[in-house]
Amino acid sequence: MDRFSIGVDLGGTNMRIAAVDESGRRLETISTSTQVTRGRALVIDDMCASIRELTGRSKDARVLAGVGIGVPGVIDMDSGTVCAAANLPGWTNYPVRSEIEQRLGAPVVLENDANCAALGEQWLGAGRDANSLCMLTLGTGVGGASIFNGNLWHGAMGMAGEVGHMTVTPDGPECNCGNSGCLERFASATAIKQMAVDDVAAGKAPELARALQANPEISAEVVFQYAMQGDAAARHIFERVGSALGVVLAGLVDALNLPMYVIGGGVSNSWDAFAPAMFRELTRRSIVFRAGESQENPKRKTVVARAILGGDAGLLGAAKLGWKS
Amino acid sequence: MDRFSIGVDLGGTNMRIAAVDESGRRLETISTSTQVTRGRALVIDDMCASIRELTGRSKDARVLAGVGIGVPGVIDMDSGTVCAAANLPGWTNYPVRSEIEQRLGAPVVLENDANCAALGEQWLGAGRDANSLCMLTLGTGVGGASIFNGNLWHGAMGMAGEVGHMTVTPDGPECNCGNSGCLERFASATAIKQMAVDDVAAGKAPELARALQANPEISAEVVFQYAMQGDAAARHIFERVGSALGVVLAGLVDALNLPMYVIGGGVSNSWDAFAPAMFRELTRRSIVFRAGESQENPKRKTVVARAILGGDAGLLGAAKLGWKS
Repeated sequence: MDRFSIGVDLGGTNMRIAAVDESGRRLETISTSTQVTRGRALVIDDMCASIRELTGRSKDARVLAGVGIGVPGVIDMDSGTVCAAANLPGWTNYPVRSEIEQRLGAPVVLENDANCAALGEQWLGAGRDANSLCMLTLGTGVGGASIFNGNLWHGAMGMAGEVGHMTVTPDGPECNCGNSGCLERFASATAIKQMAVDDVAAGKAPELARALQANPEISAEVVFQYAMQGDAAARHIFERVGSALGVVLAGLVDALNLPMYVIGGGVSNSWDAFAPAMFRELTRRSIVFRAGESQENPKRKTVVARAILGGDAGLLGAAKLGWKS
Repeated sequence: MDRFSIGVDLGGTNMRIAAVDESGRRLETISTSTQVTRGRALVIDDMCASIRELTGRSKDARVLAGVGIGVPGVIDMDSGTVCAAANLPGWTNYPVRSEIEQRLGAPVVLENDANCAALGEQWLGAGRDANSLCMLTLGTGVGGASIFNGNLWHGAMGMAGEVGHMTVTPDGPECNCGNSGCLERFASATAIKQMAVDDVAAGKAPELARALQANPEISAEVVFQYAMQGDAAARHIFERVGSALGVVLAGLVDALNLPMYVIGGGVSNSWDAFAPAMFRELTRRSIVFRAGESQENPKRKTVVARAILGGDAGLLGAAKLGWKS
């Protein structure tokens, strides 16, 4: 009998659950408006009910191989518990994995959501041809994940991939983390918005000032639109995004010499605005990147590419873990 | 019958060859003054003669398990050839491994010397308790190597570990590599000497000026001695060494969350002068390091430690490869 896996993407404001076959084809998806703020018990109830619904619909034809759940937090892989998750009240140090396994009677894997996104891109997205890669996810904050020879690298405390707090300029703007000049202060949606607000306040961005007047909640997307229309101030903001990314990427390329680095998250939609500065800085700063450029064999070049699965990367990566469980 | 392995450390001005048992005990060491500048053929002749000598001496009691050779260059592990080595004229794209295997009738592994040093420290040195670690070697330049779950990480082109060219300050002093503000411009013996010369020229270092007058070839060790005697200018130089190391370490700790980072090479003898600034910067900049500090379980803390094998790390790590071959 055919088998299928379930992937769960547990976001802050909704939850998506997909049934996926072994080739990565999505059989069915449920989106719920389950808010994690309403508490762990309710979220787990809704999750299990939705999974049973998907399982029930296909039970004649397929068997559930396993469930992968992407969680916005630090996971203890051994115990299947959430160690730390700012936005999941009540989830830490609770045996999430074993409770869900008992309820569903199927193996369950909990995994950090940025790690799931990297797995998804490797399985079905930009990284299909790369056995090892590092993914940078540029969203409200900046996260990351690394895969070595097909395996996620979790690190000693499950905290690997905190690339958002790598230093770009030691004396740069202060970050909530306690450091200053973090990548997240340049390459997140939050930072792009902040740079726009600051440049308007400094009188450097007349077009963006009008946009901000029309809508004080100006978004990174709007700044991107101005950049693509040629507004100098907006273009300068994305120059800074790209330069900061280039500095951090150069360090990762020199330290790890992975074959591929994938840039995902909402800000990656602004690729056309920041990529030229990113590649310029990366080429100037990374001897390993330049060594790759001079190789005749394309397989030895370092590839830096835009993610292609968008918001589905984490969901599909979680489903991949269901297959591995 | 007992077995033994041979490790070879191929330096620029001499070559050391050691017979090592499976526990890491060194049975015998030969040092030759073979200069690599005299050409590949001569070096390989001398190496094979020395290995035969060591093998001959112990042939009644022991069998040669394999030979590991640490080479200052980039190695293609698949073919056993040297891809790039600035200081080994005539070695690139020559089948070094297979020639030596044929001559000796034993399996041979070629490996980059910084990788050998990391393996040595993991086997018998500072990293004995760590299954994964990153080692930074602070010498004339700055090199590095990473071990994940007991395996060296070579990277797509065998160039992983170029941590010396990771950026500390994007607008910092220019490096020969084309980047500016590289770690190597702050934390190598060359950089320490240069900072002393620059500070003397700027009139900022009266004590060091006298030292420089006495010996224009002032060394990093001399600057260290002045720092330990309390000279403010020399102390400031090691503050900069430590701060730069802290910035780059913070990035590696946040990205990889390895359990251990080992600082080796000649400059690590100045640990007492640079370590306070290094830990201060690391603690301030790395959220993963701080998360480790707050863990009760000492196994989850991030350890940054000084290498303990000195110049023997590479020799012993090469011998370890002889066992794996």
